[in-house]
Amino acid sequence: MSTSFTLHATDGAARTGVISTPRGDIRTPAFMPVGTAGTVKAMLPESVRDTGADILLGNTYHLMLRPTAERVDRLGGLHRFMNWDRPILTDSGGFQVMSLAALRKLTEKGVTFKSHIDGSKHEITPERSMEIQRLLGSDIVMCFDECPALPATEDEVAKSMRLSMRWAERSKVAFGDRPGHMLFGIQQGGVTQDLRAESAKALTGIGFDGYAIGGLAVGEGQEAMFGVLDYAPDMLPKDRPRYLMGVGKPDDIVGAVKRGVDMMDCVLPSRSGRTGQAFTRHGVVNIKNARHQDDPRPLDEACSCPACSSYSRAYLHHVFRSQEMISGMLLTWHNLRYYQDIMQGMRNAIAAGTFDAWEAAFHADRAEGDIPPL
Amino acid sequence: MSTSFTLHATDGAARTGVISTPRGDIRTPAFMPVGTAGTVKAMLPESVRDTGADILLGNTYHLMLRPTAERVDRLGGLHRFMNWDRPILTDSGGFQVMSLAALRKLTEKGVTFKSHIDGSKHEITPERSMEIQRLLGSDIVMCFDECPALPATEDEVAKSMRLSMRWAERSKVAFGDRPGHMLFGIQQGGVTQDLRAESAKALTGIGFDGYAIGGLAVGEGQEAMFGVLDYAPDMLPKDRPRYLMGVGKPDDIVGAVKRGVDMMDCVLPSRSGRTGQAFTRHGVVNIKNARHQDDPRPLDEACSCPACSSYSRAYLHHVFRSQEMISGMLLTWHNLRYYQDIMQGMRNAIAAGTFDAWEAAFHADRAEGDIPPL
Repeated sequence: MSTSFTLHATDGAARTGVISTPRGDIRTPAFMPVGTAGTVKAMLPESVRDTGADILLGNTYHLMLRPTAERVDRLGGLHRFMNWDRPILTDSGGFQVMSLAALRKLTEKGVTFKSHIDGSKHEITPERSMEIQRLLGSDIVMCFDECPALPATEDEVAKSMRLSMRWAERSKVAFGDRPGHMLFGIQQGGVTQDLRAESAKALTGIGFDGYAIGGLAVGEGQEAMFGVLDYAPDMLPKDRPRYLMGVGKPDDIVGAVKRGVDMMDCVLPSRSGRTGQAFTRHGVVNIKNARHQDDPRPLDEACSCPACSSYSRAYLHHVFRSQEMISGMLLTWHNLRYYQDIMQGMRNAIAAGTFDAWEAAFHADRAEGDIPPL
Repeated sequence: MSTSFTLHATDGAARTGVISTPRGDIRTPAFMPVGTAGTVKAMLPESVRDTGADILLGNTYHLMLRPTAERVDRLGGLHRFMNWDRPILTDSGGFQVMSLAALRKLTEKGVTFKSHIDGSKHEITPERSMEIQRLLGSDIVMCFDECPALPATEDEVAKSMRLSMRWAERSKVAFGDRPGHMLFGIQQGGVTQDLRAESAKALTGIGFDGYAIGGLAVGEGQEAMFGVLDYAPDMLPKDRPRYLMGVGKPDDIVGAVKRGVDMMDCVLPSRSGRTGQAFTRHGVVNIKNARHQDDPRPLDEACSCPACSSYSRAYLHHVFRSQEMISGMLLTWHNLRYYQDIMQGMRNAIAAGTFDAWEAAFHADRAEGDIPPL
């Protein structure tokens, strides 16, 4: 069985469609919760599915170090290991090596580094990244690329992008022909339009099943990111999914979809859930704030997640202050549901040709701010 | 609506029956998971129910300090607060004051202490304990008692027991007449048969809806505990439930039921779940042990909990080693399910008059030990 991407509707630059894979359909625009080490933190996989997620992201860097790709393979692959039978996208390991590992050494061949867990030495090359992602059983495989550390000069960004393009070609060769699996190229080039164009041209010349926009959400700010998204998606083939890596806050996601992005991932909803931050229609609610301690109202009365349908703000405040695990469990569930609700709202609006009105309502709701204290 | 206790069958000293309350039936012998601060740690309440629990225990000491009984009352009571609509038993606060609080001062009137959370000063008397448990909305209220710190001389135990009996009388007066709610007296007297008899006589003279056996599982060892249980339950009215507080390991529980106990509670299954210890038919499995890292088999192939039906030992090992929350979530679920499976097994066996055979099989399974490594 093979894979496909079907565009169902567009509204301005925004698009909605479906990526079909043997493991199930991915409705786009799609938000992918991050299951770094074989688990979306604080969630059971059936609960992640219940929030509306069609696909998860797994981190190659973490999984190659522990439990190792070879072990996951022996145990039947990542889907079986973590009890998630729907599509999984794995990153290439490149970004996390740069942000987490020690003693990194970059060459034309690849990168060597020491594990942040036990100090053991490892190497990732484009070929090894493809092998790891194959052992994991990933449905959507990412090319191995390099992400230059910021701040970087335009020269450094150009040099890094060109290395990533050579690695993209090696990734494509190493990936080979794997029906039912997709390989995505990753556009680099920082915030420089010419470099983005050069990168897009290199990638489309090689030919991929989908195209990611990499090197954003690394501290450049929303304005600069949207500046790139005003032109970058259009450089990529219309008939392939476009994936913006590592984004973002709710308004980042809406702005990216508006500009033609089809897929995104971010740790923000799950990480924030564990630190007492809830994303709601009316903005961020910090549940640790004392204003909630006597508040019998739900976090968001319009949300149907377990946190909102069965618990008061006072309870959520209490369990956060008491450092109870149920705090992270409930707030993560809520945040992931909120993110998926945004995605569903956008998919519906794009299909109906009412994206602008939906976006205006989204911003108006946020501008209102949280409900007043009692 | 009122409450009742109906004995359905006995087998030797072991009993099975039902405690009926307006919030639902409690099948006995019953194991009560501990929801200390308004949550059974690492579990959603619907998952606790799914394990087979009919009733939870809440800790008066913790809840009076945070979020406070008055706040829980304003928010609609503990059931609504924590989203558990079935029966809740609350302890009196006495035991935890002795084990957790600082600067305790004990008088005839009650006990004053400093909170272990913020150092604030508090007092619990029998009257205040009844008030707190009423504010929480507890279905089964425990008399306020004193637990002497071990080691204690027989004289100290006797003195403490007699104080607890005077407090039991004050608790009964303060509790008043509350249809639909039950008040349990607590037998004390350490490991001394005469003192246990004196305590039982005092309590039955006052008259309670149920009787707890207190002052055990405090370090005296299983043999000494069973020694007391060989006579203590018989000192208490046959037509009232008997509750052994703070017990225990699986074999403690089986031994207690065999000796006529109807109810128990313990943090062990949930606490062990968070530290990587799983209770199984074949004994304790330490999931952090390296022998599990490549083991594709479930923790216990006969268990139908999510941990056993959807995950390998290798996965449970991986998420424990990676300090992922799902480790505590899955192992707690398994342990609570295992405890409830034991209870259901005993209830069935007592009803069928086959308790001895059931107990022999229970011990034979444990003696086998864990499945051999692959």
